[in-house]
Amino acid sequence: MEKIAVGILGATGAVGQKFILVLADHPWFEIRELAASERSSGNRYEDVVAWKQSVAMPEKVRGMMVKDCEANLECRIVFSGLDSSVAGEVETAFAGAGYWVFSNAKNHRMDPDVPLVIAELNPEHLDIIPYQQKNRGWQGAIVTNANCSAIVLALSIGPLQKEFGLKAVHVVTFQAISGAGYPGLPSLDILGNVIPFISGEEEKIETETQKILGRLGKDSFRPADFTVSAHANRVPVEEGHLECVSIRLGEKASVQEVVRCWQQFAGMAQELNLPSAPKQPVVVFCEKDRPQPRLDVWKYKGMSVLVGRVRSCSLFDIRYVVLGHNTMRGAAGASLLNAELALKRGMLD
Amino acid sequence: MEKIAVGILGATGAVGQKFILVLADHPWFEIRELAASERSSGNRYEDVVAWKQSVAMPEKVRGMMVKDCEANLECRIVFSGLDSSVAGEVETAFAGAGYWVFSNAKNHRMDPDVPLVIAELNPEHLDIIPYQQKNRGWQGAIVTNANCSAIVLALSIGPLQKEFGLKAVHVVTFQAISGAGYPGLPSLDILGNVIPFISGEEEKIETETQKILGRLGKDSFRPADFTVSAHANRVPVEEGHLECVSIRLGEKASVQEVVRCWQQFAGMAQELNLPSAPKQPVVVFCEKDRPQPRLDVWKYKGMSVLVGRVRSCSLFDIRYVVLGHNTMRGAAGASLLNAELALKRGMLD
Amino acid sequence: MEKIAVGILGATGAVGQKFILVLADHPWFEIRELAASERSSGNRYEDVVAWKQSVAMPEKVRGMMVKDCEANLECRIVFSGLDSSVAGEVETAFAGAGYWVFSNAKNHRMDPDVPLVIAELNPEHLDIIPYQQKNRGWQGAIVTNANCSAIVLALSIGPLQKEFGLKAVHVVTFQAISGAGYPGLPSLDILGNVIPFISGEEEKIETETQKILGRLGKDSFRPADFTVSAHANRVPVEEGHLECVSIRLGEKASVQEVVRCWQQFAGMAQELNLPSAPKQPVVVFCEKDRPQPRLDVWKYKGMSVLVGRVRSCSLFDIRYVVLGHNTMRGAAGASLLNAELALKRGMLD
Amino acid sequence: MEKIAVGILGATGAVGQKFILVLADHPWFEIRELAASERSSGNRYEDVVAWKQSVAMPEKVRGMMVKDCEANLECRIVFSGLDSSVAGEVETAFAGAGYWVFSNAKNHRMDPDVPLVIAELNPEHLDIIPYQQKNRGWQGAIVTNANCSAIVLALSIGPLQKEFGLKAVHVVTFQAISGAGYPGLPSLDILGNVIPFISGEEEKIETETQKILGRLGKDSFRPADFTVSAHANRVPVEEGHLECVSIRLGEKASVQEVVRCWQQFAGMAQELNLPSAPKQPVVVFCEKDRPQPRLDVWKYKGMSVLVGRVRSCSLFDIRYVVLGHNTMRGAAGASLLNAELALKRGMLD
Repeated sequence: MEKIAVGILGATGAVGQKFILVLADHPWFEIRELAASERSSGNRYEDVVAWKQSVAMPEKVRGMMVKDCEANLECRIVFSGLDSSVAGEVETAFAGAGYWVFSNAKNHRMDPDVPLVIAELNPEHLDIIPYQQKNRGWQGAIVTNANCSAIVLALSIGPLQKEFGLKAVHVVTFQAISGAGYPGLPSLDILGNVIPFISGEEEKIETETQKILGRLGKDSFRPADFTVSAHANRVPVEEGHLECVSIRLGEKASVQEVVRCWQQFAGMAQELNLPSAPKQPVVVFCEKDRPQPRLDVWKYKGMSVLVGRVRSCSLFDIRYVVLGHNTMRGAAGASLLNAELALKRGMLD
Repeated sequence: MEKIAVGILGATGAVGQKFILVLADHPWFEIRELAASERSSGNRYEDVVAWKQSVAMPEKVRGMMVKDCEANLECRIVFSGLDSSVAGEVETAFAGAGYWVFSNAKNHRMDPDVPLVIAELNPEHLDIIPYQQKNRGWQGAIVTNANCSAIVLALSIGPLQKEFGLKAVHVVTFQAISGAGYPGLPSLDILGNVIPFISGEEEKIETETQKILGRLGKDSFRPADFTVSAHANRVPVEEGHLECVSIRLGEKASVQEVVRCWQQFAGMAQELNLPSAPKQPVVVFCEKDRPQPRLDVWKYKGMSVLVGRVRSCSLFDIRYVVLGHNTMRGAAGASLLNAELALKRGMLD
Repeated sequence: MEKIAVGILGATGAVGQKFILVLADHPWFEIRELAASERSSGNRYEDVVAWKQSVAMPEKVRGMMVKDCEANLECRIVFSGLDSSVAGEVETAFAGAGYWVFSNAKNHRMDPDVPLVIAELNPEHLDIIPYQQKNRGWQGAIVTNANCSAIVLALSIGPLQKEFGLKAVHVVTFQAISGAGYPGLPSLDILGNVIPFISGEEEKIETETQKILGRLGKDSFRPADFTVSAHANRVPVEEGHLECVSIRLGEKASVQEVVRCWQQFAGMAQELNLPSAPKQPVVVFCEKDRPQPRLDVWKYKGMSVLVGRVRSCSLFDIRYVVLGHNTMRGAAGASLLNAELALKRGMLD
Repeated sequence: MEKIAVGILGATGAVGQKFILVLADHPWFEIRELAASERSSGNRYEDVVAWKQSVAMPEKVRGMMVKDCEANLECRIVFSGLDSSVAGEVETAFAGAGYWVFSNAKNHRMDPDVPLVIAELNPEHLDIIPYQQKNRGWQGAIVTNANCSAIVLALSIGPLQKEFGLKAVHVVTFQAISGAGYPGLPSLDILGNVIPFISGEEEKIETETQKILGRLGKDSFRPADFTVSAHANRVPVEEGHLECVSIRLGEKASVQEVVRCWQQFAGMAQELNLPSAPKQPVVVFCEKDRPQPRLDVWKYKGMSVLVGRVRSCSLFDIRYVVLGHNTMRGAAGASLLNAELALKRGMLD
């Protein structure tokens, strides 16, 4: 089977580099186009990128010529790691020109006709696409994935919502510096410090989680009706967002029932055996002091979320800690899973 | 006026060193005795201590001879920075021998006849002392201060409880490594990491806060009846515990009313003008991303708690961030305030 | 005595903020003017500065109006914390307009008629100023201080050069992130890491040290003739540059003689009793594992350099470690000392 | 071919855990015995170990029973990750009882009849073993590998010594915290700090390097005659020792010649194609700011040393930076390579 050509928008940035890593040896897709801002276009990739990964740059992209983010790339699928300052217009242009855009940018996430998808939780939200195409007069489409903290949260509460119902969610985040991109946070701000504020983050966690776990009606989404309260914080950790979560369920469930629910959970991504899908989307740790970002973030290739310290709560029903890899599961990996899902479902034929 | 002789138990440890710093130029007290374990006793202080403070060791203690923790020190007041493995018995022995013990150790905090005091919030809890002395047949007494995280939390919720009532408290902590003493946390465990567990900490925060903000009846304490749920976490920060707090009040109050309540709050420590009392126990920051441990922990000499990001909450009423200096306000400084309070109230006459 | 009005160029930047701190309660000088880029000018200082100091912003500057960096400020002395992208021209303009510019920028340091001064080591280099003024047709003047790493090195080797002569210097630096200004180093680059390269730093250390410790002949400087080899590295430390130094002396000296030389050293800054001069420019530590940046950098108000681990060397004669506060002694404090020196010597009359 | 049974002494410690990782899927060896102190023996491995690796514990060792460090293990080869407080006697007992001990402990490294081997550099030093056995009356043997910093240094200077000769070596180290084992350095000592001292480290670097690069005469080693001067420092980095090295060569060589020498270097480990030998022992980086510990330490499976910033030096001939993985190449991996070497050379038949 011949591989399908794909392009990466914003290929030199932090998310773009992660897209290159997850696509480097992909069984279905092949990186054929790299696009970035004018500053980089017209040059060989390795000459313009500040490669910040601990894994070496894949040989195949080193010599590729970086192009402008113009909708004339030779591929039909593009992954967008664009900065939000330009992602809105560029992605619209690509979708209008017939491309399928799998975007990690925030710009279109909350558009009423754009699906915000986690392949394990709400694959049926892709069914809005025909309406999106008709509504916008597009041949192409835009599919988004959520904010990194929202993905980690949603993957842990989603299975419980399906089984027990969900009334309220309280989350306090401990977010890694890689979530701010590169150059991102100045070291003087975060070394030996905690910053109890991330601009716009709490709103994203609250609204995006409700959209993901809400329902797709006829041509529109109805957000889930549980309440979410989020406190977002930055900590001096390289990779991995940790979250302290307290939840109130629709119907009572014991700690054991909740743990079993997570352990047995599998979504469409698992059923379709998508190449980037983790075997087990939610892994539960028994050690009393795990998961921890530095020790655990790369487990299961960074594509599962890791839950620990599950216990009952005097104010809510259940409380726990969840860790997810913010630039893998929370960004490039999530977008890739969405493309795999759309392809496997025949939407790209 | 001649200064009153005091001794320090556990003088070589992390809390003991902080006691030395806060007592070094005290207007009422003078360090006359230093006591520690057998390993150190019989030696000059500077020869046995691993001094880990960024402030130089006060000249007057350098040459002092370290004694055993036996109840034959030449002073009537002792401050205990003892490790909990020995504090229980040693403090009992001193109180039995007529000493007033102001203790930072956890051992006696929850004893039914031992007061757990924050000088601004529940100075009246000292009134249990005559009963304690009678009950135990002591001439001396034990007065404790709370766990560092509990103190920071209590100072922020206490004023609101007094004015609006309090129904529920949800707190997630970001605790500095100095809270674990020295050697404390191995660097391999915490560098670039978060540890979502601190042994026994959540229980202490929950129960001690209720005791502090509860009532002293006739010869016994009645814990406050609000519910507390605590998630405790360690972060790679040197000093300063940060806490994300969400609260439900007894009667509704706006963000403005809550802020004004904090800004106007003063307790007996302020009224009596105790030497170590901060002018304003709770200081409210307006910047959107403050307080931060590294930048703010030493403000107001580390004796106020600093509140920021006050906002309403969809699940509770109010949410905010609070920062306190864990080894000053949360340990040595709290204990010293208690001694100043007891002295000023004439209890030590 | 009325205080002398001074201005700060680049007042909102990292060095500018340190100038504000060291000048806030100065006995001779008073901050009368704050100037910065167009982005800030025309606004109140506290509204445009991102204040990153752990000390609160002095009250007196909060409401001061920030002006452009035009040579029409109401003062005769300006301190320049300007970025090197603009410092060259702006400082020239000010000097041409009659201002005395005490500059921390690198632009004019190696100009043949501009003195590069450490008040303890080469105060006589100020004698070039009349020639500079004549040469350039200026009423004003430019006096520079060296790169932060060069200052720390020079203060430790300077006294030895005077007493024993100096043939060779090998230095490996461990430089704090604050040396890169703000925003400076991205946290993703330095958290849990070492960067073995700082652009242009090794050359500055090598050439500036030789100029400082060289001689002023008639209207020109002759660099010192010892060889300097520098390896510059960045480490995840907030403040304080540590340097591992190995030196070959002109005439043999024992470790004891070297230590005594440092301990007895005092320069013109001490003789004139300048307000910002440390009592002892070089302090020698005896502990086997000191000085350390986090524990020691603020000792002696950050204006002395701290030497430790002095021992003989199989390849050179003597090796040791030296620590200096890079933004105090290595920047704002050094510049201020130079201004105090020029004033006390009557050059500003 | 059946695998050869091996045991690990000190299996629960930091080095012991690394031995387990490198031996887990080894083509020649199979972990059959785990031994540790009395505190652990008699228990299942997973119940007593504080597993601190980011890789999961290999399944096969989880349930293995930990034994005492008595010389009655069912294997003929043991790897020693013992603490130096006990390694001396225990290793002697095992060698006396017929075991081949490949030791990472410092105790026997400088014994006149014990080889200190880096498989690429001085494999011929193993030829002392028959003399060692005769001299001590042993059936078994002790083979040691060097201190982690010495290995990294030796691998970078060894190829140059062979080709150009070597007169002098000056090295300043930036050592990771994992080099101190677990619990090792207290976090309060190293967070945001540099410690310019590591007990005994400088002597080890100086003497061990000379032994490794010296000659084996008849029944004794003659240390190399170049001089080594080492400054050892600890930095807040998890893994990877970085070293700033300046060298004087026996005969002049250009930067290009030195780089080519490194790139072409291969030793007996490569010629024999030992399973743990890196293809290229010394890899040279061209980027101006690499290698860096966090980004590069795991490259080439952590078994090559990585050189960068090669340039000429005004005081010596050549200066450069070298990085090596301290617990892989500098400890467990080095010991394993020595065992592979001895086996392949038929010494264990």
